[in-house]
Amino acid sequence: MATASKAIYLKAYPQGLPRPDDFIVKTVELGPIKDGEVLLRTVWMSVDPYMRGRMRPDIKSYIPPFSLAEPLDGGAVSEVVESRNPGFQKGDYVVAFQGGWKEYSVSSGAGLQKVDPRLAPLSAYLGVLGMPGLTAWAGLNQIMKPNAGETVFVSGAAGAVGSLVCQLAKLKGARVIGSAGSKEKCDWLMREGGCDVALNYRDYKDAAALTKALSAAAPDGVHAYFENVGGMHLEAALNCIAMGARIALCGMISLYNSAGPEPGPPNLVNLIGRSALMQGFIVSIYLHLAPQFAAEVAPLLAAGKIRFREQVYDGLAEAPGAFIGLFHGENFGKAVVRVGPDRL
Amino acid sequence: MATASKAIYLKAYPQGLPRPDDFIVKTVELGPIKDGEVLLRTVWMSVDPYMRGRMRPDIKSYIPPFSLAEPLDGGAVSEVVESRNPGFQKGDYVVAFQGGWKEYSVSSGAGLQKVDPRLAPLSAYLGVLGMPGLTAWAGLNQIMKPNAGETVFVSGAAGAVGSLVCQLAKLKGARVIGSAGSKEKCDWLMREGGCDVALNYRDYKDAAALTKALSAAAPDGVHAYFENVGGMHLEAALNCIAMGARIALCGMISLYNSAGPEPGPPNLVNLIGRSALMQGFIVSIYLHLAPQFAAEVAPLLAAGKIRFREQVYDGLAEAPGAFIGLFHGENFGKAVVRVGPDRL
Repeated sequence: MATASKAIYLKAYPQGLPRPDDFIVKTVELGPIKDGEVLLRTVWMSVDPYMRGRMRPDIKSYIPPFSLAEPLDGGAVSEVVESRNPGFQKGDYVVAFQGGWKEYSVSSGAGLQKVDPRLAPLSAYLGVLGMPGLTAWAGLNQIMKPNAGETVFVSGAAGAVGSLVCQLAKLKGARVIGSAGSKEKCDWLMREGGCDVALNYRDYKDAAALTKALSAAAPDGVHAYFENVGGMHLEAALNCIAMGARIALCGMISLYNSAGPEPGPPNLVNLIGRSALMQGFIVSIYLHLAPQFAAEVAPLLAAGKIRFREQVYDGLAEAPGAFIGLFHGENFGKAVVRVGPDRL
Repeated sequence: MATASKAIYLKAYPQGLPRPDDFIVKTVELGPIKDGEVLLRTVWMSVDPYMRGRMRPDIKSYIPPFSLAEPLDGGAVSEVVESRNPGFQKGDYVVAFQGGWKEYSVSSGAGLQKVDPRLAPLSAYLGVLGMPGLTAWAGLNQIMKPNAGETVFVSGAAGAVGSLVCQLAKLKGARVIGSAGSKEKCDWLMREGGCDVALNYRDYKDAAALTKALSAAAPDGVHAYFENVGGMHLEAALNCIAMGARIALCGMISLYNSAGPEPGPPNLVNLIGRSALMQGFIVSIYLHLAPQFAAEVAPLLAAGKIRFREQVYDGLAEAPGAFIGLFHGENFGKAVVRVGPDRL
């Protein structure tokens, strides 16, 4: 039986900041599934900053650009609504790097991971228990390796990744400084988000001003920095790093919508004098650690030792707005889109 | 007995490129040595790029700035001419981070390391067997860790540090690309310096042109990069790095004489997509590995498996010129100044 599915396409590659006009909803027909396949109904989909990179066909990256001729794609939690694959039953829930930006999708079963809706809300598998969570955990434990008493700085601290970095660092006994873009976010970081100091970066007009605030908050220097933002955040962090500091370079969201290349920080040379490390990473190089991550973080979540926030958008049509909100600091916590109910 | 010693002072902190006028020779009187002290006669002294950083009193660094009221100082090989320290005898040769820029100096014996003039020419202890050698060896083995068959890129490849990086990398089975600033240097790199490809960076007008040449020389990408230069070299290297690349950040000589901060590379974000590491270092963090370095490199040198070049300047008065030459690419190999004969 054929299935009609609404799906979101790029109308054109965005120039600069993405706008609602760059997206269009179409209805596609999915043919009957074949032997070995499953039909998935998207329940939750994820919007993530890395997707902006897939909207630049001119740039060679670790992941191919989106095609204008296909629906967009991305991480999702889906329900198996029909299965001709012995590994999956109707009613199973799965998380995968596919299924986003559409109501239904067909899968060979490859890359689908079953998830248990009784252990955590389904959307958590797109955030704190999903790729953003693994990103945070791996950056912290594989690169930053903070010792108790050391000072950790996290930019984008109220986001899906940053908020977990802050809390895990705090649980390890670090002193945590987070930066975020509103008073409301900073208040949450201090109250629940594991931060000892929260800096509202909108209060600082340039790298010099942010450096001054960071330096005051980190009198012994920054021993480890988790980079989500780039620009003046990286420059300020490089001004404040301690000897032997470790920088986990995860993202530079402030640059993703630039028309052309932006100059890098003028103080990279500080890495030399302070014998500091900067390690860039994409989460896929740490996929083999996913079980270790889940074993550590899921119990912390269940015990209430880790909090997470979501910015929920309702309905597939809201997905472009959720995505655009990433670049305006509008989302507080993990941005997720509820495409359909948990169960029909 | 008092000893008269010529010594070089900074007349003023250089602005931009250092000029001969920034230096002045004075004669100082060293009083008789006390119990526990030794009187050292400088035989060879070293000029090194890091010294430029000590001529900027405005910049906080890992090493204090030079004072205008004291002679300059730096690495030297010296002869013990008088000893009231039981650890040293008249006629011993020692290498230390002191004794440079002057004919005589007094030491408590701390930090002096005896060297054997029969094992290698004395000046080698300032180059291939000294701090530049350890710098090269540690950057290669502790950070770049090239595997056989991988491509290694080295900037400043004909210099004291770079030339050893190239040769050690080649001995490990890497394909080696070196960059230097003259045809003569490039020819030597190909003939004796361990390079498979040598790029004369003066042939490339900007980072885009250098990227094109480097990319052609490294079709599988650059797996490890040793950074001595900064500027367009770093930008080109970042354009060409392979997944999982390692960058040893040792120096950025192209920036040391800037009046103000220079923008960093606009493509630092490549570190993320290619999950690459950039580790800054100063050699002192690897001092504990000096015995391991010497055990590996001294036999290679004795066996003729490693070549080194020196640019010899004769006489203390030539020291400023030797130092200034570092920033004009005038020195081919390790720049050393013969302050006095091996033996009086």
